[in-house]
Formats: sequence, structure tokens, C-alpha cells
Amino acid sequence: MLGLPPALTDLVHHLTRLPGIGPKAAERIALALLKWDVEEVAALAAALRQTAQRVTPCPQCGCLAQDSELCAVCTDASRDRSVVCVVETALDAVALERGGSYQGCYHVLGGALSPTRGVLPEDLTVQQLLQRIEEQQVSEVIVATNASPDGEATALYLKQELAPLGVALTRLARGLPSGGQLDYADAATLQSALEHRTEL
Amino acid sequence: MLGLPPALTDLVHHLTRLPGIGPKAAERIALALLKWDVEEVAALAAALRQTAQRVTPCPQCGCLAQDSELCAVCTDASRDRSVVCVVETALDAVALERGGSYQGCYHVLGGALSPTRGVLPEDLTVQQLLQRIEEQQVSEVIVATNASPDGEATALYLKQELAPLGVALTRLARGLPSGGQLDYADAATLQSALEHRTEL
Repeated sequence: MLGLPPALTDLVHHLTRLPGIGPKAAERIALALLKWDVEEVAALAAALRQTAQRVTPCPQCGCLAQDSELCAVCTDASRDRSVVCVVETALDAVALERGGSYQGCYHVLGGALSPTRGVLPEDLTVQQLLQRIEEQQVSEVIVATNASPDGEATALYLKQELAPLGVALTRLARGLPSGGQLDYADAATLQSALEHRTEL
Repeated sequence: MLGLPPALTDLVHHLTRLPGIGPKAAERIALALLKWDVEEVAALAAALRQTAQRVTPCPQCGCLAQDSELCAVCTDASRDRSVVCVVETALDAVALERGGSYQGCYHVLGGALSPTRGVLPEDLTVQQLLQRIEEQQVSEVIVATNASPDGEATALYLKQELAPLGVALTRLARGLPSGGQLDYADAATLQSALEHRTEL
């Protein structure tokens, strides 16, 4: 924009990299910040740095934790340690936690197998998962990889690796999303919904 | 949200204070930042601090400037110094600059007169404006206060104060906004549009 001080244009440039923030919104945010006290802006800046520096993966499950300590799920004594939900990323665990009904633990794989992108089994935390299953007497592993080709391939790979351990292996149900309308659902979703139909 | 590290919840809390950022968007931004390099987040944090610390009002007109130096408009030799547009805030000047057609200078009042909120003439930069008009041989003052009761009152006050100086005094046109539809326009806007109708 014409005539804005360089510090401001620089900030706008940085803000447009955030998700859902276009040039207009970035400019609006930057100009709104001018009305804040210097201390308030400093607090926001500090919060950004803190997040980048202190948020670390949980050394046990790989979920979001702080200062290399165990995450909130791993330290919660009320969680069922015999059930482990395997997700691709820590953000997937955050999404599942939003539901609020899952009472087991998590295991973050760190991605999905993808020969085309060069992600091999050794790039994922599969060994750590196998170790946890043995050490913590896990009775059920819920595979919650994405419903994408890579996620499916990873699920099949896990099935093959976990078979010798004799642990119950389940995966998330496929079907119509909650509130979903049939005429907007894709063919694959409808097929899954039909195939896995349940008693009414 | 359940189980997020404290540093992350703190950042989400700060982000929700930004305009147009609700709790959902703030969470999305905070989680997206986890994928950034620490250096990138530090650069954003630094840009925030820079803006808060270095963006200052132009000592001459009050527009946005940097490090207490003159603003881009005041340093631009091609701008017409004999025309001064009086605005309430620096952000109003930013809005006018977006049009890109105005070639004069600005004067930021620092608000509008408001007896109810205790804003009196001495709280505004009226004296500095009078001084500038004399010193810089200003020939026209365009009053661009908001079309609100306070803005109108301020415009009338300026008319009274500037009358003895013999300077041409104009104000922004009132009428239909560009792209505006008659059936959505309020009565006052339509009345102004009718009253100030121009030849076709």
C-alpha cells in the first residue's frame, strides 16, 4: 500500500503467510495493532516466540507438549493406557481430542508412508509403537490415519507389522459425516456407508 | 481446547484479540505456526515489535511514519503543499491514500470533538493546523471528518476557526457510495444524494 511506513508493510507481508489471512485482512490487523499499547504487542510477540520455542513433541506419544515434558494425555492418570490411537500428525490428535469422548492414549507416526514422496517405514515412529505395545501391555490399537491413499497404505502396513503381537487392531469407521447430505456425498463415501451399514 | 500446551493456549488467547480473528481462526493460526521454522516465527514476532516501537506519527501532519521522521506524503516533493486534507485519524489518511488520486497533504486532528466523551478543541491539533495554514501558504483545506455527529460538529468548529484566515474550505461530497444500491441506502444518504445532485 502507498505511503505506509516500512515496518508496517513488513508486518503485513509476514501476516499474509498465516492461514486464512489475505492481504486485506493482514493490513487490517497491522493497522489495528497500532492502537494497541507497545506492551500488548510485545506480549503477543512473546507468545509467538514461546510457542515456537517451547512447544515440543511429547517424548512418549509425539503429541503436542511443552518443554520436552510429557503431554497432557500421557500425564492424565484417568486415560486408558491399554488403548492407543495411531495418528499421522499431532494435529490429528488435537482434532480427535476436540470430540472429548476418547479416553485412550495416542501415538503420532510423524506422517504417512509415501513411496513417491520418499517417506519410508523407518521415517515413521513404527518401532517406538511396537515397543510401546509390548512395554505398556496395549490391548487395542486404533489406526486413525487419513482416508487418503497414503493413509490407507500406512494402515495396511501397520496391520502387517502388528499382526504378530496379537493386539486388537481397529480403524475409524467410514461413512456419512455427521450432518452430511446424501446428494453431496461422493461415491466412495456412500459406498463405505452402505458397506458398513449398522442396525437401526 | 483440551490438552493443548499452555504456551499454545496463551497464543490463541492473544490472537483472538486481533480484528476478524475468532477462537477457531486463532487456533488454526496457532497450530499452523507449529509447522513454521523457529526463525520464521521469530521474524514475525520481531515485525510485530518493530511496528509497535518504530511506527510513529509524522511530526508535521500526524500520519503514519517511522522513527519520528516525516511521513511519505510530507517528504514527497510532488505533493501539493497548498492543499491540506483534515482527517480525524491517521487510518483515515491511509483510506484516502488507497484511492491514489489525492495529490495534496494531510493533517491528522487526533479525533473528533465530543463533549460527551470529553474531547475538547484543545485535545485536537487545531492550533498546529492554523499554524501550518499560515506558514505553508495553504490555499484550500478539505475537511474529511467522519459523517458522524461528532465528525459534523468538528467540521463546523473548523469552519468557524478557519473563517478569519480566508482559506478555501471544502468538505467531502455526500451521496450514494460507489456501487451502492438505492433500495439499500439509508434515508439520510439518499437525501444528501438528492440535495447535492450534479448535472448528468
